[in-house]
Amino acid sequence: MKLLLFSAIVLIMMAFNFQKKTRVIFFGDSITQAGAGPGGYIKRIDSMCKAEGKEENFEFIGAGIGGNKVYDLYLRMETDVMAKEPDCVFIYIGVNDVWHKATSGTGTDPDKFEKFYQAIIDKLKARNIKVILCTPAAIGEKTDFSNPQDGDMNAYSNIIRAIAKKNELTLVDLRKAFLDYNLKNNPDNKDRGILTADRVHLNATGNQFVANEMWSVVKKL
Amino acid sequence: MKLLLFSAIVLIMMAFNFQKKTRVIFFGDSITQAGAGPGGYIKRIDSMCKAEGKEENFEFIGAGIGGNKVYDLYLRMETDVMAKEPDCVFIYIGVNDVWHKATSGTGTDPDKFEKFYQAIIDKLKARNIKVILCTPAAIGEKTDFSNPQDGDMNAYSNIIRAIAKKNELTLVDLRKAFLDYNLKNNPDNKDRGILTADRVHLNATGNQFVANEMWSVVKKL
Amino acid sequence: MKLLLFSAIVLIMMAFNFQKKTRVIFFGDSITQAGAGPGGYIKRIDSMCKAEGKEENFEFIGAGIGGNKVYDLYLRMETDVMAKEPDCVFIYIGVNDVWHKATSGTGTDPDKFEKFYQAIIDKLKARNIKVILCTPAAIGEKTDFSNPQDGDMNAYSNIIRAIAKKNELTLVDLRKAFLDYNLKNNPDNKDRGILTADRVHLNATGNQFVANEMWSVVKKL
Amino acid sequence: MKLLLFSAIVLIMMAFNFQKKTRVIFFGDSITQAGAGPGGYIKRIDSMCKAEGKEENFEFIGAGIGGNKVYDLYLRMETDVMAKEPDCVFIYIGVNDVWHKATSGTGTDPDKFEKFYQAIIDKLKARNIKVILCTPAAIGEKTDFSNPQDGDMNAYSNIIRAIAKKNELTLVDLRKAFLDYNLKNNPDNKDRGILTADRVHLNATGNQFVANEMWSVVKKL
Repeated sequence: MKLLLFSAIVLIMMAFNFQKKTRVIFFGDSITQAGAGPGGYIKRIDSMCKAEGKEENFEFIGAGIGGNKVYDLYLRMETDVMAKEPDCVFIYIGVNDVWHKATSGTGTDPDKFEKFYQAIIDKLKARNIKVILCTPAAIGEKTDFSNPQDGDMNAYSNIIRAIAKKNELTLVDLRKAFLDYNLKNNPDNKDRGILTADRVHLNATGNQFVANEMWSVVKKL
Repeated sequence: MKLLLFSAIVLIMMAFNFQKKTRVIFFGDSITQAGAGPGGYIKRIDSMCKAEGKEENFEFIGAGIGGNKVYDLYLRMETDVMAKEPDCVFIYIGVNDVWHKATSGTGTDPDKFEKFYQAIIDKLKARNIKVILCTPAAIGEKTDFSNPQDGDMNAYSNIIRAIAKKNELTLVDLRKAFLDYNLKNNPDNKDRGILTADRVHLNATGNQFVANEMWSVVKKL
Repeated sequence: MKLLLFSAIVLIMMAFNFQKKTRVIFFGDSITQAGAGPGGYIKRIDSMCKAEGKEENFEFIGAGIGGNKVYDLYLRMETDVMAKEPDCVFIYIGVNDVWHKATSGTGTDPDKFEKFYQAIIDKLKARNIKVILCTPAAIGEKTDFSNPQDGDMNAYSNIIRAIAKKNELTLVDLRKAFLDYNLKNNPDNKDRGILTADRVHLNATGNQFVANEMWSVVKKL
Repeated sequence: MKLLLFSAIVLIMMAFNFQKKTRVIFFGDSITQAGAGPGGYIKRIDSMCKAEGKEENFEFIGAGIGGNKVYDLYLRMETDVMAKEPDCVFIYIGVNDVWHKATSGTGTDPDKFEKFYQAIIDKLKARNIKVILCTPAAIGEKTDFSNPQDGDMNAYSNIIRAIAKKNELTLVDLRKAFLDYNLKNNPDNKDRGILTADRVHLNATGNQFVANEMWSVVKKL
């Protein structure tokens, strides 16, 4: 009898332990690459997850590579995403598609940005992977729309917003969230130092901010 | 006695006729080049001036050349401005300084934009020519700051606003005026067709709009 | 006996008629899009093929889309190439990857050009499709290497040459062939009008020249 | 009598000592800015001058500022050149006019490059200052014309060569000299390390090479 009870408990625990975790991949550029490092937003999501006692429910994987644009994601999605059999993928891309126009003449045309973005979604959907979209947060934190790339950043964010709507996908609108935060917390109209260290890459506050935005979506999965 | 009176009248009329007109030069790019043509903003200022019976007070000269950036104005100011001995010069430049970054890789760095702009002002001031500054109106008329060059257009307009303040010069803030007008009259967030024909060059409404803005300043000279 | 002979002849003819043609796809940009039109290089290859009585051996399909860069080919290769089950594919791309850097800030970085190019080859090879590479011919026909994009055109052609060597693939070195032709036929160092109409797109001579280069390779398949 | 002779000798010596030196200004960008520093090409010209016992004949002044393009020279020529009353000016500019197209979208259009270049010459000539032109040496030292900017570098060098011819000015054709040197001394087709440290800025060998080229012209003044 005792043995039976013990066995039952062990089985229940095993079942609990072997419950498949929801595997979440963050698919992006250098921001996500740093996000997987110490103090990065993915590590912070992981910490929040543990703090809420949900470490058995989720598994977080960073798949960010510096300099990536939307078509780079498309090229490496088999090896870096599909092969890992995720349940959910955050697509967090766009900064370099805009920025590289100015720095090396190798940005992405808006129509092609949309085409590749949709192609990534189509492939993920075909495997029943949940897709969550993010707008690119910032290239400069000024609040008066005088960061040089603001026009394009808004235009490309609009493309992502439209894709999210058309595909009925959850959107983490980081661009809007960053602007709202800066309107309250950046009274001197600085171009960096609020949520970013260098106008683009997240500082500690920025990593926590992104982690909060994403965790609030992930925990409802 | 009659002869005396007649002579006096003639003298007064001559004095009136030979009163030096205030010579106003509009110094700029293709927008100003078109502004000197039929239906252009300079022609419209001239018409408004005549309608108000002030044709003896003002003389308007267009000095716009397509594709010009701030340093092109600097290069040709002796021949195209100084040589004509103006009393007042409108500087209306900046679109190509921003736009050509994207279309040919030959825009103007912001620090150099400021340097050349100030150098033009210094030369005009040294000859006691009244200087009036204008911000570049638009590259795209969308009102949600998603025209690709909006960030840079705002940044370069901010430079001009700061120069106006620092030099205590009158500013015709076309960028602000265009945005305000579009916020009221462009409910569909179109990128052209409200004040511009092609996102940059003025349509009839735009030419009249600019004429109004400038004439309200000129008539007070 | 007569019947037997007749039947044999019919069978031979049928065999001849139903021999599968070698299906050749030309995969590229606007040059190839035009190449499929009247007077285009693909039409000319077809004519040469017929003139040599080989129309039963080959079938030629154009798959060119204006503005395409290497990653656009990668994106559409399933629908536009694989679905048509070709035996052989000419990859003729690279002009826009270089050119769009200067005209819209949306060219392709050399390392990514190589990566996508190799990825296309890998997919074609995996289906046992014969792959033939072409270097991009020209952006400007001057022979003294003073066409603005000459440096990059040579650099990207070098990348393609290295890929051809590494993958042991046939290379149609149009860039070299165009330069050699121009060295003989362009004594005035003109930037267009020899093999191109507008520095990039082929005129009649250019279409025939490319047709010759490609047909000499195709007929040996 | 002895006193008289002594006085005469002193006077002659004084005359010799106070003979006006030929003042040579090197007017350019960061290459010239570094050229005025330790080990720089201007310092080396000065050393060669002294070694040949001609220190009383020449005076060398560096007027290079990092990031300068042709129009920056034009803007600062009064303060940095004219004010120093030179007898001779080397114009050594062009790298940034080409390079900044790719790195920040702020290069110089070829027609404007020519216009500003000529304007600088006109101003110097008007003051009877001897003008010596230099072509921009290199952005990359590869010898097969596959340095990304080679086409434009050749095009802008051609502009300078034509200006030299048209204005009958001495030309130091550094671009040709660098290429010739590399063809002999860069068998591995490296992009740096022969005459430049980083594809653009001169290493010790490069500084000495430029010094030799310039000194051979200066000593004949």
